[in-house]
Amino acid sequence: MERTLLNQMAENDGKKILVEGRVLNTRNLSNVSFVILQDRAATIQCVFEKETGVKPGEAVSIVGTVKKEPRSKYGYEIQGETLEVVSKLVEDLPFDMTKNELNLNLDTLLDHRPVSLRHPKVQAIFRLYDILLKSYEMVMREEGFTEIKTPKLLGSATEGGANFFKVKYFEQEATLAQSPQFYKQIMVGVFERVFEIGSVFRAEPHYTTRHVNEYIGIDGEMGFIKDFRDVTEMLGRVMRKMFAAIATEGKQYLDLYGVTLMDVPEKIPHFKLAEIKELIKKEYGHVVPPTTDIDPKGELFAGQYAKEKFNSDFVFITHYPWSDRPFYTMPDPENPAETLGFDLLYKGMEIASGGQRIHEYAQLIENMGKKGVKPAGMEAYLNVFKYAMPPHGGWGLGSERIIQQILGLGSIKEAVLFPRDVKRLAP
Amino acid sequence: MERTLLNQMAENDGKKILVEGRVLNTRNLSNVSFVILQDRAATIQCVFEKETGVKPGEAVSIVGTVKKEPRSKYGYEIQGETLEVVSKLVEDLPFDMTKNELNLNLDTLLDHRPVSLRHPKVQAIFRLYDILLKSYEMVMREEGFTEIKTPKLLGSATEGGANFFKVKYFEQEATLAQSPQFYKQIMVGVFERVFEIGSVFRAEPHYTTRHVNEYIGIDGEMGFIKDFRDVTEMLGRVMRKMFAAIATEGKQYLDLYGVTLMDVPEKIPHFKLAEIKELIKKEYGHVVPPTTDIDPKGELFAGQYAKEKFNSDFVFITHYPWSDRPFYTMPDPENPAETLGFDLLYKGMEIASGGQRIHEYAQLIENMGKKGVKPAGMEAYLNVFKYAMPPHGGWGLGSERIIQQILGLGSIKEAVLFPRDVKRLAP
Repeated sequence: MERTLLNQMAENDGKKILVEGRVLNTRNLSNVSFVILQDRAATIQCVFEKETGVKPGEAVSIVGTVKKEPRSKYGYEIQGETLEVVSKLVEDLPFDMTKNELNLNLDTLLDHRPVSLRHPKVQAIFRLYDILLKSYEMVMREEGFTEIKTPKLLGSATEGGANFFKVKYFEQEATLAQSPQFYKQIMVGVFERVFEIGSVFRAEPHYTTRHVNEYIGIDGEMGFIKDFRDVTEMLGRVMRKMFAAIATEGKQYLDLYGVTLMDVPEKIPHFKLAEIKELIKKEYGHVVPPTTDIDPKGELFAGQYAKEKFNSDFVFITHYPWSDRPFYTMPDPENPAETLGFDLLYKGMEIASGGQRIHEYAQLIENMGKKGVKPAGMEAYLNVFKYAMPPHGGWGLGSERIIQQILGLGSIKEAVLFPRDVKRLAP
Repeated sequence: MERTLLNQMAENDGKKILVEGRVLNTRNLSNVSFVILQDRAATIQCVFEKETGVKPGEAVSIVGTVKKEPRSKYGYEIQGETLEVVSKLVEDLPFDMTKNELNLNLDTLLDHRPVSLRHPKVQAIFRLYDILLKSYEMVMREEGFTEIKTPKLLGSATEGGANFFKVKYFEQEATLAQSPQFYKQIMVGVFERVFEIGSVFRAEPHYTTRHVNEYIGIDGEMGFIKDFRDVTEMLGRVMRKMFAAIATEGKQYLDLYGVTLMDVPEKIPHFKLAEIKELIKKEYGHVVPPTTDIDPKGELFAGQYAKEKFNSDFVFITHYPWSDRPFYTMPDPENPAETLGFDLLYKGMEIASGGQRIHEYAQLIENMGKKGVKPAGMEAYLNVFKYAMPPHGGWGLGSERIIQQILGLGSIKEAVLFPRDVKRLAP
């Protein structure tokens, strides 16, 4: 008999079918037993007239008859005839996977990742992540972006700083890419609009709830812009379409977390950094420490301000100071102490960083000089600006942070399949 | 005036429009001059009544009137009024980009990658690559696979051997992933069907036309299979749909290389390795050296055999010997000296490797013991087999090799934006 998937019950009502999958839970009454079965498509309850002996967590093959069952949340149930254990538990599961909530501490959750990922609420995180990737890929292509894959092994650090991992590369030393920044800019010279979904490595010794040392960056870069507002407008449109897809296709997973996604507004509010700092000082009495552009608490208040005044979960903060942005960021022609660099906050947390880039060779070299950045190792990148680069800009989004913020997860590590932090390289 | 893209000429016939892009070529006659303009959507010829002074390679903004022009290969031309250079060449291009063929040696082509990528024939390679990525993403989702992103920084080498790069990771040493093998298997226990498009790092000191040290692997892994033929059948279906998409959407790029893609056959021929070795010995007199499963020349003959006898560019070679396949490969129950591991050849070159995996803990441990593989560092991977893994298998495709073979490129490096080899870490 060919296998039937569990989302095909309506068309098989009354028929005898073969189904396969993992047992999520079992329940035995005096004369009847229940098996909750999950396959890649759906979940359903199977009813047997005797005990099956199967344990939650095992992989099974069941033959039975589909029956409409209005009392079941699945709408149908399967009246089981035979149950074969396709793969059995050699050892008991390390914790009870049948509860609605795992309630494990973060380390236990991550140490036992291969098992904890099977829990429906954990699965839901990565079903949403799949929808996020799919919708980004689709939306970017709709907007005329070409997908690229750029190298992660580099002969030199891309953006300066010391926060890169070193790799022994045959007779040389390589570094791991901190972002696809230089390459995506080069590719704007080729395809005008490009996007990349790829690994990003940051050797920062963070111990926070919003940093990991390896993550998936989703980048975009576009040419022939008039100014940085073309970039924030595009990013806003992309987020709007992505969030609409996540809200629709991901509804059942959002429901598990009690989350209703708000539409991304047509016009996401923009504030200059200096301006929003004044506003949150006035509104909430929060003073951003002078050692930083804006602290996490300041971001939270900026998010709160956008929510209260504009009913928006999103807010762009623009015109970060020249001193704090990388050398390739376009200075504001009207005030060179500020740049046309921006961050996008979602629910009070930075999820994207971007800006207009310098596209003229002379200005780029001058800006590097002012910042004391040495051109050694960047020759190929710098040279491309001799060859007529159009005005351009773009963004880098942290894919996992978006999911963290959508679901309100306590740590970004919950939104990474196998997260990496200062201590953790396994599983 | 709002910008119009160059693929929107029909709807703008007779209208004055603003277009922007890069000048591919120019030609000046006595009383008229031509500018071939490319933007992200298309290419068109603009005609001016006087010399424009613009150079090939510059980025421009042109205002002019759309006119139907049946003699032009674009069907339309733009009668230019004004031309503004948006970004000019600071230095002459390192070589003539206006010729139909660049005709550069590989090192020059790669040393000047940011420029050579702009040539239409080089662009075509990466337009096709974009279609390949897009169609894989789409087809895999149609088949019920969930997209995953697994870590590239590992605490231990995944598949044994010494061909991995080492990374200084805070107080520890990490290795770069040679494949997502262990993680995609673990994820079969979660989502049953998963796929990944991600970076793969191989520290093999190759000097061949078909190896690079960093590439993009496109992987698939599926559970609840009956045997390895479910995997080869799925991979065949995926290739069929991908190639159909590439042939249709990529036609203009294939045309540049004079390539017509053959349909992937409904049934790709399968041969056991021992069997195909006999056949190519008999048919072509080629004896595979005893030091290898099958040599590159043997692969070529296997491809030739499939082409001549089955009119197929594709052929599966199956049942590789137990001694030459990794410890997680399922031995053939009928002949444990062979495995249920396979390679997929396209035009006589391996583009995918895959197989059925061992899914029972005891068998896996036993097989590791026989092979002398130590479990240290693999605990999380091995443990998951205690927890009811379904029968499963999958593949890893080399994305760049597919494009190399489709276009008949002399080296795989031409199919990588910024390739990495033993010597090359830049650009």
